[in-house]
Amino acid sequence: MKTAILLFDGVTALDAIGPYEVLQNAPDNEVCFVASSRGMKRTDFGRLGLQADYRLDEIDQADILLVPGTPNPEALLSDGAAIEWIGQQHAGTQWTTSVCTGALGLAAAGVLKGRRATTHWMALEGLREFGAEPVSERVVEDGKIMTAAGVSSGIDMALTLVSRLFDQATAERIQLIIEYDPQPPFDAGSPSKAPAEMVDALVAEFGPQM
Amino acid sequence: MKTAILLFDGVTALDAIGPYEVLQNAPDNEVCFVASSRGMKRTDFGRLGLQADYRLDEIDQADILLVPGTPNPEALLSDGAAIEWIGQQHAGTQWTTSVCTGALGLAAAGVLKGRRATTHWMALEGLREFGAEPVSERVVEDGKIMTAAGVSSGIDMALTLVSRLFDQATAERIQLIIEYDPQPPFDAGSPSKAPAEMVDALVAEFGPQM
Repeated sequence: MKTAILLFDGVTALDAIGPYEVLQNAPDNEVCFVASSRGMKRTDFGRLGLQADYRLDEIDQADILLVPGTPNPEALLSDGAAIEWIGQQHAGTQWTTSVCTGALGLAAAGVLKGRRATTHWMALEGLREFGAEPVSERVVEDGKIMTAAGVSSGIDMALTLVSRLFDQATAERIQLIIEYDPQPPFDAGSPSKAPAEMVDALVAEFGPQM
Repeated sequence: MKTAILLFDGVTALDAIGPYEVLQNAPDNEVCFVASSRGMKRTDFGRLGLQADYRLDEIDQADILLVPGTPNPEALLSDGAAIEWIGQQHAGTQWTTSVCTGALGLAAAGVLKGRRATTHWMALEGLREFGAEPVSERVVEDGKIMTAAGVSSGIDMALTLVSRLFDQATAERIQLIIEYDPQPPFDAGSPSKAPAEMVDALVAEFGPQM
């Protein structure tokens, strides 16, 4: 089994690394980081370099495709080669997946037309422009497409994905390895739980670019 | 405020990237990835390269020091320059923190002597050899030292840390940005919750090296 994780300059690291940490512990899974060009890609605010070991054309066919997101979707959507590659890969994947605004990359590749999908809560309405049906849930499955909400939700998605690919025990074993027994000190992780003025302030700050 | 995250060959990516994603959203926080030598460090099973932008001696004094872990603690403990640097930095930090077996790096630097601390559930007893008191909790604070349990627990730790550095609202804002409203599909993320035979099998597989 081969998993290809797309990288690009501007990517949000945890979107990619959350599911990677789960998927690299799945049995017999070759995990590859791929980009339009090989080499270091800087994350969203420039503070970290992640290495793309493979060019897009070096991946024949991924069984699992994972597209992470970014607070600046143009960083992904303007990468024409990557968007085209997403569509080509999707034709032959077993699962096509995204985290956060990575869903906009799937949508731009035409993968989400008429499909139920999710993305970061601030970007949900953006899916509609591509003919997708936005769903405000943490993990959304529609056929072989699995999309996750914002940033940290990719961990929940990847565990769900492993249970579909293998079984519940395989996913539980990985959950135990990464000690994923979350105990957030606060309960403000979704717009329905956070103070309304905090939600409004974030939309005012990030909304226009999401 | 300056946060230094230690990298080394063999590091577990999510140990570093979970807290990084929280801390990089904290106000006025310069986040730096640091290692014994500049350049790409490969993660635990070799599948990803993370870039160390700074050498140890290029960081005058970190306000927050974060030491991530590895399934092979020797990868960290054999890096004598890094262990020495941890001790030097700790003398002037505001907070000294670790995720997973990164705690063994703090311990080897003498930082945890007589202190309550946690680490990956499989490595807890290893802390005792360094004179620390192992505590089976997700996040443990002792003075200015904050240690987190395995891999994914660094997210919970970093949100706690932000609430100490700033206030609860600042932490909640970050929790909302990274949409950290965890919904694990299964409940096997700690040895007290996973099936006993699964726990035993993992200890048999990883235990000797942890």
